Amino acid sequence: MPAFDTSESHCQIIDAADVAAKFVKRIQSEVLRRGADNNPVLRGILANDDFAAKKYADWTAKTCEKTGIKFELVEVDSMSAEEAVDAANNDPSVDGIMVYYPVFGDAQDEYLRNAVSIRKDVEALCHTYRYNMYHNIRSIQLPGGGASKSLLPCTPGAIVKILEYVGVYNHNLAEGNRMYGKTIAVVNRSEVVGRPLAALCANDGAKVYSIDVDDILVFSRGNGIKLHKHEIATTDISKSAALGNADVVISGVPVKGFKIDTADLKDGCIAINFATYQNFSPDIVEKASIFVKSVGKVTVAMLQRNVMRVSRSTDMCGSADIL
Amino acid sequence: MPAFDTSESHCQIIDAADVAAKFVKRIQSEVLRRGADNNPVLRGILANDDFAAKKYADWTAKTCEKTGIKFELVEVDSMSAEEAVDAANNDPSVDGIMVYYPVFGDAQDEYLRNAVSIRKDVEALCHTYRYNMYHNIRSIQLPGGGASKSLLPCTPGAIVKILEYVGVYNHNLAEGNRMYGKTIAVVNRSEVVGRPLAALCANDGAKVYSIDVDDILVFSRGNGIKLHKHEIATTDISKSAALGNADVVISGVPVKGFKIDTADLKDGCIAINFATYQNFSPDIVEKASIFVKSVGKVTVAMLQRNVMRVSRSTDMCGSADIL
Repeated sequence: MPAFDTSESHCQIIDAADVAAKFVKRIQSEVLRRGADNNPVLRGILANDDFAAKKYADWTAKTCEKTGIKFELVEVDSMSAEEAVDAANNDPSVDGIMVYYPVFGDAQDEYLRNAVSIRKDVEALCHTYRYNMYHNIRSIQLPGGGASKSLLPCTPGAIVKILEYVGVYNHNLAEGNRMYGKTIAVVNRSEVVGRPLAALCANDGAKVYSIDVDDILVFSRGNGIKLHKHEIATTDISKSAALGNADVVISGVPVKGFKIDTADLKDGCIAINFATYQNFSPDIVEKASIFVKSVGKVTVAMLQRNVMRVSRSTDMCGSADIL
Repeated sequence: MPAFDTSESHCQIIDAADVAAKFVKRIQSEVLRRGADNNPVLRGILANDDFAAKKYADWTAKTCEKTGIKFELVEVDSMSAEEAVDAANNDPSVDGIMVYYPVFGDAQDEYLRNAVSIRKDVEALCHTYRYNMYHNIRSIQLPGGGASKSLLPCTPGAIVKILEYVGVYNHNLAEGNRMYGKTIAVVNRSEVVGRPLAALCANDGAKVYSIDVDDILVFSRGNGIKLHKHEIATTDISKSAALGNADVVISGVPVKGFKIDTADLKDGCIAINFATYQNFSPDIVEKASIFVKSVGKVTVAMLQRNVMRVSRSTDMCGSADIL
């Protein structure tokens, strides 16, 4: 990990732990309020030998210890991953399910994401949650009756919380339009982070350059004020011009050695890295006004927040709503 | 397309049109029975410039003309694909929806597959149909009430019909076990054909080698008679040994120039190609007892059969059941 030396710059480095603190505290007190006999249970399913996945599982365990959520890790081989998901779906003692991806590393992982019951899908990566997020639908009808808040996928949700924390959302603007006037570049268009994040930002009024290896798309509200959702268009803008226009650059390229060229960026931009590898160079502190090195701690806070939400079925209007 | 010359061999070449004929005829007479005012409507959505997709759409139009199903093709750019799906979902005049893939060519296509309403998903590629197929669940509860037969994805379903036609299913065995004793190699493990097909065959009692670029897996019923579903295991068998053990070799490698080495195959095996490119060499006729060059005509028959099924909501127990 390169050192980011801000001694000679005005760049503020924001620690994800500071962003997460508020949520962690609320989860802790809500767990206490419910009492030791009602600790929510998160079942983790680890079905690969991936080092990063194992580390993420260890980290989930550690952070759950802090908040009081009971974390159970089940380790199986990939052949048994779906059975482990089914068992957790059918186990009334389990509130939330977290699968550590990649399991198969291809379209079969999409299948597995949809195999998690919507009542326990705290990663919020099943189709219904993603569809609702794209279409700005805020609640879901649960199978078998009842309604619930539509959850947001953890990493995109965490980045939105970071954007709020660093002041990209303007609270003088109307809700749903609080990033109006902002240009955001998202470097990554995966189905689990980059595309949802671009849509979330566009749904909140921003103009978003979604930058992929192959092309650049523009996500915007467009007629979305009518449509209640974003619109997407192709563009001929170059990658460096898109980056140079961006007030906020959010990068998540999972490739060792990949670096955003700091020279491309606007003076005073906000830079956020969500990849395992650091996508920004040490000289980012000479260009950015705010730099967020990693988002993982906020992601895990969002995960636990979703656990609290799915486990409060009898308590929908209680104090847990502040979560 | 190479010529397959059987003049000096005992190999039978089976034309997919002959397998499809029975289904096409039933669909025709059912369309007639319902009357011109009740023609089922299939909405095709073409959202790419892919030559093969366009050809498939033309072909759907042509075969629908023959059966009497009304086919409407909508052409949009990929940015508007999801909106076109939503519009078709909400259009009461549309019975079935068919999207011509690839649209995005990545995980986003999986998202799009799940965006098609289960009431209109005649390709049967949304998660619920695939989950039910893997778990041998034969009916679905429809959202908003009512139950329906769980549909099979068209290409895997078509290949099962071909296996029945060429006598791989033994009707002296109990239903659900009619391929007991048979070894089948499936060369392709995609989420839309290879993996479902391997599971379908294993659910019906066969031992299946699922051969992918990276590895070979064995799908079998195992304890599935209890579990009502297949089991999957890893294996160290070589590709040529797996092919040499197979009574039936079903290949769908979408790579020009890819060929199964005929020398690897068992004398008298049954060979079925479902790729756009021919995966078998001309000398296959010297080795195989039965050879099916392509399956597309049966696939389109299965697609139309699914259209008939989803469009008969008020007629669940009528003569359409013979479809």
